[in-house]
Amino acid sequence: MASHRQSDGGPPPLRRRPPPCVLLLRHPPHFALLDRPLPEDRFRFLRPGDSPLPFDDFLATDDARSAEAILTSQGVPVTADILQRLPGVRLVVTTSAGLNHIDLAECRRRGVAVASAGEVYSDEVADLAIGLLIDVLRKVSAGDRYVRRGSWSSEGEFALGSKLGGKRVGVVGLGRIGLQVAKRLEAFGCTVSYNSRTKKPYVSYPFYSDVHELATNCDALVICCGLNKQTHHMINREVLLALGKEGVIVNIGRGSIIDEKEMVQLLVQGELGGAGLDVFENEPNVPEELLALDNVVLSPHTAVFTTESLSDLCDLVVGNLEAFFSDKPLLSPVLDE
Amino acid sequence: MASHRQSDGGPPPLRRRPPPCVLLLRHPPHFALLDRPLPEDRFRFLRPGDSPLPFDDFLATDDARSAEAILTSQGVPVTADILQRLPGVRLVVTTSAGLNHIDLAECRRRGVAVASAGEVYSDEVADLAIGLLIDVLRKVSAGDRYVRRGSWSSEGEFALGSKLGGKRVGVVGLGRIGLQVAKRLEAFGCTVSYNSRTKKPYVSYPFYSDVHELATNCDALVICCGLNKQTHHMINREVLLALGKEGVIVNIGRGSIIDEKEMVQLLVQGELGGAGLDVFENEPNVPEELLALDNVVLSPHTAVFTTESLSDLCDLVVGNLEAFFSDKPLLSPVLDE
Repeated sequence: MASHRQSDGGPPPLRRRPPPCVLLLRHPPHFALLDRPLPEDRFRFLRPGDSPLPFDDFLATDDARSAEAILTSQGVPVTADILQRLPGVRLVVTTSAGLNHIDLAECRRRGVAVASAGEVYSDEVADLAIGLLIDVLRKVSAGDRYVRRGSWSSEGEFALGSKLGGKRVGVVGLGRIGLQVAKRLEAFGCTVSYNSRTKKPYVSYPFYSDVHELATNCDALVICCGLNKQTHHMINREVLLALGKEGVIVNIGRGSIIDEKEMVQLLVQGELGGAGLDVFENEPNVPEELLALDNVVLSPHTAVFTTESLSDLCDLVVGNLEAFFSDKPLLSPVLDE
Repeated sequence: MASHRQSDGGPPPLRRRPPPCVLLLRHPPHFALLDRPLPEDRFRFLRPGDSPLPFDDFLATDDARSAEAILTSQGVPVTADILQRLPGVRLVVTTSAGLNHIDLAECRRRGVAVASAGEVYSDEVADLAIGLLIDVLRKVSAGDRYVRRGSWSSEGEFALGSKLGGKRVGVVGLGRIGLQVAKRLEAFGCTVSYNSRTKKPYVSYPFYSDVHELATNCDALVICCGLNKQTHHMINREVLLALGKEGVIVNIGRGSIIDEKEMVQLLVQGELGGAGLDVFENEPNVPEELLALDNVVLSPHTAVFTTESLSDLCDLVVGNLEAFFSDKPLLSPVLDE
């Protein structure tokens, strides 16, 4: 990451032209959370909220049409319509690792470059995935509730957990995050296998082209893939049933990769053993039924949220903008896949 | 573990003498939790609770004095007095890895063999240690509470966590469990160092002979040592202050290794960053002040409690009794240290 960190004196000023205009579809909360200002001296950040016009009318203003880049975050879409109406835009930077809010096909068609959070979050997300898996198997959050409500002293010993070592864990999506999850699982003595669009030549874990078959051969699944048309509701009722009554699912990808309604029903009925969920289909709303279950751990989409990763992310966002407008390669370009 | 598992037909009966008498100081909950009977066909288990006499008087009966072995658990002491009054006892088996409830010096003096849980629990305990560390740093249990009480949808984004990777973690006690903790920490990109009675020749982690010095050089401590006179309140106010405002302590050893009162005060005052605690000084009582803190995770002494480890433990207990009374080596003898 050192390559895009600012040196003490900051990078040389971008000469020969006025500061490039960056449309802030949403002020990235990462900067605010760290009390870190945007580099207003080197870019002109345009905030639709500062205009009295409705967003749709705002897009038609000369000001909006002067934008050369868009900075956005997870959940704030960059649609084909926006891109068509802002023909000056040549770069989209998102603070997320996921890209499902950006019309990548339209970007590609228009020659708009896209930069993402890249690998900034991989370790954090993998750490939380393992934390959620341990928590579900060993009932950590449930045990914490047990102690806090006074049940340990009044009701005696707490329920038995299940051992992580020896478990067959399937990693769904063996990208940057999935590989980090697999590495950690090995240290716990788990047997790792995976499902992915294509077999990876550089790993020796068993590959299953079919996620249902993976689930049949696993005690737990960790969802690490991105959300797209192919992965939407990929973890359906049949996959969850294949995982079984003792099976555990961990999701640090996107909520809609799992058919949430079916998952909730199976958890309530005891047809699925447990779940550790950082993401949900309709955030921040969590299905009411889950709130009463002791075999689920509910996390408010915090997989990427550490002080360290936000700081790295802010460096990366600014670094990508600076690189692009200095005609240098993006630090974290989104690869065509 | 296979060596002490029963074959289908069971081991050959112990011939030439009546079944050895085993004093059950406490029925090991492990068997009950798994609905598994004790091997009453091969041993005569003597339960003090079956006698109308007070325990002290019971020890004077011929029945008690016929005991050749004692089976006990954590928290049920085997004192010098008991051993002196039951001169026929040649073996003490405990279901725990910790040995602080057994007068080892008296056992040694009397030539009484001692068998413990050995390595049965090491993986489980190390897994929970890592789970607690991730939970404190990434606020998993606190996040789960945040979701369950509806705060995510009403109050918005949850607090930032702290990254595990890159943290300097000190392992206090690099025995079987400590080594497993260290191995897992490495997979998360942590820098491991340790404190132990003696420097271990077989590891390359930096060694600190002084636990205060270790704390000064670490972001987190994981307590993995046994409780004895030397380690009682070893983690005192000074050590905790050296760990600091961002520092995290995880205890899966015994509660009294930490000066709990001081720890609680420092946590409340914000002088210590957080704590993941599976053990407490006065179990099952947990200091009231901790119940209100979001930077602590409270676990009801479950580190060893998985279905898998209890099953292995039951095999080991029976295996140790059978080995001893067949004049074979114990499966998990306690080594003189």
